[in-house]
Amino acid sequence: MTLTIYGDLVSGNCLKVKWVADYLGVAYRWIDVDVVKGGARTPGFLDLHPDGQVPAVVLPDGRALAQSNAIIFHLAEGTDLIPADPYDRAVMLKWQFWEQYSHEPYIAVARFQVKYLVKPAASLDPKLVERGYAALGRLEGATAASDYLAGDRLTLADVSLVAYTRVADEGGFDLGSYPAVRTWIARVEQALGLAGR
Amino acid sequence: MTLTIYGDLVSGNCLKVKWVADYLGVAYRWIDVDVVKGGARTPGFLDLHPDGQVPAVVLPDGRALAQSNAIIFHLAEGTDLIPADPYDRAVMLKWQFWEQYSHEPYIAVARFQVKYLVKPAASLDPKLVERGYAALGRLEGATAASDYLAGDRLTLADVSLVAYTRVADEGGFDLGSYPAVRTWIARVEQALGLAGR
Repeated sequence: MTLTIYGDLVSGNCLKVKWVADYLGVAYRWIDVDVVKGGARTPGFLDLHPDGQVPAVVLPDGRALAQSNAIIFHLAEGTDLIPADPYDRAVMLKWQFWEQYSHEPYIAVARFQVKYLVKPAASLDPKLVERGYAALGRLEGATAASDYLAGDRLTLADVSLVAYTRVADEGGFDLGSYPAVRTWIARVEQALGLAGR
Repeated sequence: MTLTIYGDLVSGNCLKVKWVADYLGVAYRWIDVDVVKGGARTPGFLDLHPDGQVPAVVLPDGRALAQSNAIIFHLAEGTDLIPADPYDRAVMLKWQFWEQYSHEPYIAVARFQVKYLVKPAASLDPKLVERGYAALGRLEGATAASDYLAGDRLTLADVSLVAYTRVADEGGFDLGSYPAVRTWIARVEQALGLAGR
């Protein structure tokens, strides 16, 4: 059996899994799940993935796994996308946990509201916008100081953070004042083979 | 130099780090940071920890690290708190990412509002309460099926999830209908040496 990825290509969390599989040359079957239409809440899906979220995978041995960052950690075990150095590895995880708590809930949620719920960016909750910019400011400091977020080469931290940062403008965020972030996005896209896509 | 932990003992995220250090017999110096009074936003703290959050540590070699789940991963590298099996390790991380995204923002935030902002539980945002109970329901299913969250023994997943689940009642959540969760809490507390504390 081959890896099966359940995902929605409009979701940055799902794209993380696709990008890592593509980058590593892992063969997979992609099954589109339309989250907005409840595709992750059907009984068949919930049997496999009780969290009711995408991305989710079924591994070649038939076992299920969910959560974008856990899936890409599993796919990338033993590859250079996970630093061999324990400190760099912990820093990578630090950024991934930070992404889920302090970045995604603002940057991705704003994009969802603007792009998919067609809400004017000017009507977003000001706290959401403020915290999104705070996350971008934090990233600006980190990417100004170093080419990559953990250690000196591309890791899963860059994959996880670039997913929604590269489309932050779709949620109304202006990256104009974040030059290091823009340069880092281009660098990571290049490394992942996403440039121009 | 010894490990230095910056934390606040009322924070479950900080307790995760303390518990893992205690469990593993790692020596440390604990520095109290009063988050509510802005202790994580002073210039001296931000120089070391630009995320402005606790827990944060300075490792014996002088390097800084933040994010509870990244810190405990680093402390526990090579110990039985992290499964040797790659799939179980990914499942552990799955639960830890799920905790930060789908559990802590409801269970811990409700507790903060009720216990520290002295807001009546009945006046909490109904969505917050609903999502908190959804998280408890998911945990009930998992703990009814297995003694521990990842593999067949205590791992960091249990440490991370128990931190706020064991004090969910302080945010107004009633664990009466979650017998497997209650049994699991007692089991994890026992394993961590927290019983009665």
